[in-house]
Amino acid sequence: MRTTVGWQADGAGIALRRVSFERRELRADDVAVRVDYCGVCHSDLHAIHARTGTANAPLVPGHEFTGVVTDIGREVTRFAVGDRVAVGNIVDSCGVCVMCRQGQENFCYEFPTLTYGGTDRHDGTITLGGYSREYIVRDRFAYPLPAGLDPAAAAPLLCAGITVWEPLRALGVEPGTRVAVAGLGGLGHLAVKFAVALGADTTVISRSADKADDARRLGAHDLIISTDQQQMTTARDRFDVVIDTIAVPHDITPYLRLVALDGTLSHVGHLGPVTVETLDLLIGRKKLSSAGSGGRPETAAMLEFCAQHDVSADIELVPSARVHGALARLERNDVRSRFVLDMSDLS
Amino acid sequence: MRTTVGWQADGAGIALRRVSFERRELRADDVAVRVDYCGVCHSDLHAIHARTGTANAPLVPGHEFTGVVTDIGREVTRFAVGDRVAVGNIVDSCGVCVMCRQGQENFCYEFPTLTYGGTDRHDGTITLGGYSREYIVRDRFAYPLPAGLDPAAAAPLLCAGITVWEPLRALGVEPGTRVAVAGLGGLGHLAVKFAVALGADTTVISRSADKADDARRLGAHDLIISTDQQQMTTARDRFDVVIDTIAVPHDITPYLRLVALDGTLSHVGHLGPVTVETLDLLIGRKKLSSAGSGGRPETAAMLEFCAQHDVSADIELVPSARVHGALARLERNDVRSRFVLDMSDLS
Repeated sequence: MRTTVGWQADGAGIALRRVSFERRELRADDVAVRVDYCGVCHSDLHAIHARTGTANAPLVPGHEFTGVVTDIGREVTRFAVGDRVAVGNIVDSCGVCVMCRQGQENFCYEFPTLTYGGTDRHDGTITLGGYSREYIVRDRFAYPLPAGLDPAAAAPLLCAGITVWEPLRALGVEPGTRVAVAGLGGLGHLAVKFAVALGADTTVISRSADKADDARRLGAHDLIISTDQQQMTTARDRFDVVIDTIAVPHDITPYLRLVALDGTLSHVGHLGPVTVETLDLLIGRKKLSSAGSGGRPETAAMLEFCAQHDVSADIELVPSARVHGALARLERNDVRSRFVLDMSDLS
Repeated sequence: MRTTVGWQADGAGIALRRVSFERRELRADDVAVRVDYCGVCHSDLHAIHARTGTANAPLVPGHEFTGVVTDIGREVTRFAVGDRVAVGNIVDSCGVCVMCRQGQENFCYEFPTLTYGGTDRHDGTITLGGYSREYIVRDRFAYPLPAGLDPAAAAPLLCAGITVWEPLRALGVEPGTRVAVAGLGGLGHLAVKFAVALGADTTVISRSADKADDARRLGAHDLIISTDQQQMTTARDRFDVVIDTIAVPHDITPYLRLVALDGTLSHVGHLGPVTVETLDLLIGRKKLSSAGSGGRPETAAMLEFCAQHDVSADIELVPSARVHGALARLERNDVRSRFVLDMSDLS
């Protein structure tokens, strides 16, 4: 076994502890990654809150990280020691089901192996995440990090990024498509950057006007204040695609009303059960969809696109030792974009 | 005013009465239609059930009919006396809103004028429907009935037909598209015929195996029994498009599970509020949509398509005097396809 260090979470409100723990020795198709930067995702907060009692396996969060290959298994040909790589929230899948064969390992029929809190398909251990200095990952689920992408600002692409990239692509967003993005957090600000870079006519929907500067800086062409009924009414049936990144339960109806004829409202992330009046879908033949995470082909394509178009996340980089403070601020929504942990303090 | 005769409904369980009533004199852009055949739609039942007390204007149902032009207004150039025409459930709209300009008068911002129970945009009278011998309609909302289409079997195309035609077209159904149709009533059987004629790989989903012969006769390539869990499980993620024509409130989740990656479940008709687990949309990036009625361009296109591909409704033709019995049988679901009233007994 290999020993590494990382940050273990013991529950809501409890400061994360720096711990030593073991990683598996490399299998034939594994690569060892020195984790340099790891994004702090809303899912990490959910996972920490979900911990109860002591029966759980240890929780080390973190599922969007970048780093450098330090070792490779004997059958690995895609990577060499020293390569820059990125890893997202999936580290394995069955590889043979209908979804895997379509390159959508995120929808694997056997459920993909999650980067933390998942069960390894070979040894049955619970995976421990990227809030750590080393990660061992099957080579298929590590992605080359293209030259030109800043490794810290690229880390959030691997979860926040791909989650909004896939619906934009699947919905055929291209030059001239009218796209609106509701919410300007970790997912929303990347959705805006992607939409702008794809050539879409891009609008931000926000609850308050104080996001106007942010929206403009991200390249958005317009801003709609969702609490201004007049603006919302005027924008009726205006957008081919509305990406709803609002992370808390909410009524989607006002956003559905902004969707144009034959357009789609895609909610990203897991909103739980939603109730919709079919008449709100029927009038305008609108579609309601959802998306989350991504498959290998589109993850690789997104990274290439980001390198070509100079797109990465707006981040606030903090030493990993300050992870607890970052999570606390994320919890009270006190972050403009995405926290990224600098793991060099774990060496 | 012009006097005609028709069948007035006074409420649920009350036999319709043959009545004489007045139609308006022709405006400049009106045509007078001798109604020969009128379909009996589920909406007619709903309208009859919704009648309470005596405060309502008289109700003459019927919004899918065919007939012959007997008179034209002075500005009418699209029709001549003697032309075969068809009329659906919309007889007017604002003509200038975003939806009307896109040829979706069914989604008119000012709400389209319905063929019965609607309010005429000019004189404020309540419209009286096609269960009658004559109808006066604005020329834009009458459609030439192509040669070769049987006028009785074509009548249901104007409501049941267009309601399933529009989503099939909007969802891009073409040769090779995998389409499933749930329910084999008035809408469902036409959806199957359209999908087959469009070249789709077409499957019927039915609660019981006794629809197998019907499905085959309609040209479907396969049948799935929805009460057979094994069959439903095997068909997971199989269809690009699922058209759900089931007319009673039901859980859409089992049908959503049959939708393939990036595919769409379209419910036709008005199901009321539906609740969906976003995870059932997220996994497979599926879309939920709805459709109902249709606009002028697609109505005309559908009629041309039907003439070219010899598609019309399977009907049970009854004298209009038997309308009450037809409605009663429809109410207890004792009809294989669509009742059509033969109006010649009103002469």
